[in-house]
Amino acid sequence: MLDYKLLAALAAVIEQGGFERAAQMLGLSQSAVSQRVKLLEARVGAPVLIRLNPPQATEVGQRLLNHVQQVRLLERDLREAVPMAGEDDLPPRLRIALNADSLATWWAQAVAELSIREALQFELVVDDQDVGLRRMRAGEVAGCVCASAQPVAGARVLALGNMRYLAVASPEFIARYFADGVSQTALRRAPAIVFGPDDQLQHRFLSGLDYGGEFRYHLCPSSEGFVRLLSAGMGWGMVPALQIPVELASGALRELVPGAVVDVPLYWHYWRHGGRLLDTLTAELAQRASALLAAGQG
Amino acid sequence: MLDYKLLAALAAVIEQGGFERAAQMLGLSQSAVSQRVKLLEARVGAPVLIRLNPPQATEVGQRLLNHVQQVRLLERDLREAVPMAGEDDLPPRLRIALNADSLATWWAQAVAELSIREALQFELVVDDQDVGLRRMRAGEVAGCVCASAQPVAGARVLALGNMRYLAVASPEFIARYFADGVSQTALRRAPAIVFGPDDQLQHRFLSGLDYGGEFRYHLCPSSEGFVRLLSAGMGWGMVPALQIPVELASGALRELVPGAVVDVPLYWHYWRHGGRLLDTLTAELAQRASALLAAGQG
Repeated sequence: MLDYKLLAALAAVIEQGGFERAAQMLGLSQSAVSQRVKLLEARVGAPVLIRLNPPQATEVGQRLLNHVQQVRLLERDLREAVPMAGEDDLPPRLRIALNADSLATWWAQAVAELSIREALQFELVVDDQDVGLRRMRAGEVAGCVCASAQPVAGARVLALGNMRYLAVASPEFIARYFADGVSQTALRRAPAIVFGPDDQLQHRFLSGLDYGGEFRYHLCPSSEGFVRLLSAGMGWGMVPALQIPVELASGALRELVPGAVVDVPLYWHYWRHGGRLLDTLTAELAQRASALLAAGQG
Repeated sequence: MLDYKLLAALAAVIEQGGFERAAQMLGLSQSAVSQRVKLLEARVGAPVLIRLNPPQATEVGQRLLNHVQQVRLLERDLREAVPMAGEDDLPPRLRIALNADSLATWWAQAVAELSIREALQFELVVDDQDVGLRRMRAGEVAGCVCASAQPVAGARVLALGNMRYLAVASPEFIARYFADGVSQTALRRAPAIVFGPDDQLQHRFLSGLDYGGEFRYHLCPSSEGFVRLLSAGMGWGMVPALQIPVELASGALRELVPGAVVDVPLYWHYWRHGGRLLDTLTAELAQRASALLAAGQG
């Protein structure tokens, strides 16, 4: 078998973001951690880490991490069947990647009951809509919520439902830029708020209006910050209907073009042999997510 | 003078997160961008990029980017005084790093008016409370809101005021774990919600209660997601009072120990020679931030 002490050292350095914290977590000296990683590199005959701050896994390193993640999930099941004492005797923790808008809306309601029932701890990693799968492939997470329907090798996919996005702005903003309607000229002048450079939502909305030109924009990679900028009248932007029921009801935010929605399908990716807890989480999401998401389409 | 075509190629690769998007932005072929970066490396006699996905700047590369950022800020002023036509003729954009909790609370209200008045576009970068300064040092941003009072070389610091954090949870959570008070035993059992591995807020709160032991926790790197997990009863956590006035008033979230607050001072870091717009933003923050922050301490 592989020497899991070496693999655990690699995983700790990546997960803790450095050798010093990895050493703290493992209860080792920093040089011991460094030795183990070097020994691992000697065994596999290739670098496993790029020594940046924070360190990054090489492609070989990512394959090893992927393996470690899957072994850990299997160990969790084993430990429920065969209770073992030891250093590793921690409550269960699942590392999940998800898009910021899911975390800002339906996720907590879907998983809270399970988390309390199983004393399950989540380590949530926030990723852009379309890139969460990278972590899944790299073995850094046990599951992933994203917009891609294509499973990675060794994993399964469950369709969760559609997240409905509305193009909204404050009434003052609409009066300033769109008093004469959402015309091509107005769209060129009015600043948008965009979540990140990978965000295609506003392009999908604009192409529905036959607008393909340039537009000004603020970049704001935070769901809560996004709504704050919208409410302060700094731009228009695409927001999940689920995130702003209060603002829509009070009129603090209004649709630019009522009914011109963008629906984004969401999928749950999970390892096929991920163990009982991951299967329980999958069952919980299968049961709850679609109703929670549908509440945004009323 | 330096060859700014080469420096602009480097900056585009880092800012756009890859050679392909950099080429698109610059209107060049990908191989032309790659050539320019290689030529730059030949000139400085050292690598400027680590070819990862996305590419990262080496230490030398970061010094060059730092310089580019400062030159750009100066060019903005020049362009206001001496209008010039040309490829670079874009509306002004400021790249700012700030902690997630500022973006989730007071930031939009502080800058909205300025942003509208000057047609200023923001590119906001969210960083952990104590690490935002790294980007400032690396020259990736024009300014930074963070908890450190220590200026970086070439920059100035302005004290903004204190962000007040409360330890809160849902009434159901408090009834389940803290029915007999916030005892040492209860703190060991009750799961916390922690923003990220660098987050020290809950440790500061707990040491105020003389608790230094282990505790269970969820990791949730999203301000909005954080409040959702709290409201769903998944844990207790440290939240800016400014972020949850509605939840506090309605009783949806309650303090674990009324009055046991943690105050975090916030500072605005900005380049000394950052140009007129950056100075205007600084003046705006000096005038507005402290009143907005003080509203969370009532």
